[in-house]
Amino acid sequence: MYGLIGKATCVAGKRDEFIAILLQDVGAMPGCLSYVVARDPKEPDAIWITEVWDSKESHSASLQLPAVRQAIAKGRPLIANFGAQTVTEPVGGFGLAKAR
Amino acid sequence: MYGLIGKATCVAGKRDEFIAILLQDVGAMPGCLSYVVARDPKEPDAIWITEVWDSKESHSASLQLPAVRQAIAKGRPLIANFGAQTVTEPVGGFGLAKAR
Repeated sequence: MYGLIGKATCVAGKRDEFIAILLQDVGAMPGCLSYVVARDPKEPDAIWITEVWDSKESHSASLQLPAVRQAIAKGRPLIANFGAQTVTEPVGGFGLAKAR
Repeated sequence: MYGLIGKATCVAGKRDEFIAILLQDVGAMPGCLSYVVARDPKEPDAIWITEVWDSKESHSASLQLPAVRQAIAKGRPLIANFGAQTVTEPVGGFGLAKAR
């Protein structure tokens, strides 16, 4: 499996709008086992996205999906900056969906 | 929802043993929506645990479950140190299990 833990900071006051784009346009994607969007409770413009994919290739392919490309185009102006992104190798746990 | 993103570093060479304890003893827990254990691909003794709970209270209560207490007792000697733990407020996404 292939995992990502990433943080991004939105343009001031745009976090809820950005989250809505992420949750509206990005549904179940081939090979996606988990995709969770969270607010940072201490930083009013920051979000965390944690992802689990069956493979790195599925994640890369997802970036070409029309819905994802559309979300990126709509969301990018709302991002002030991206924090460090951590790649992980998930090995198991609870709540991982079956890949499509 | 209540989320946690945490990193820990195991005693050298003990990562696989520690992960096995986490995955064996910690199954579905009341209020747990996601619990993913991952290796850090760059640090041979480091792991990441990402969690989503229906509430902070469910997470706190889980620490008193016999299986979790047993896992903590077995796993603690295998941990060299804990990294920073980030609390998040998950708002949605894909792959979140239903709470029990």
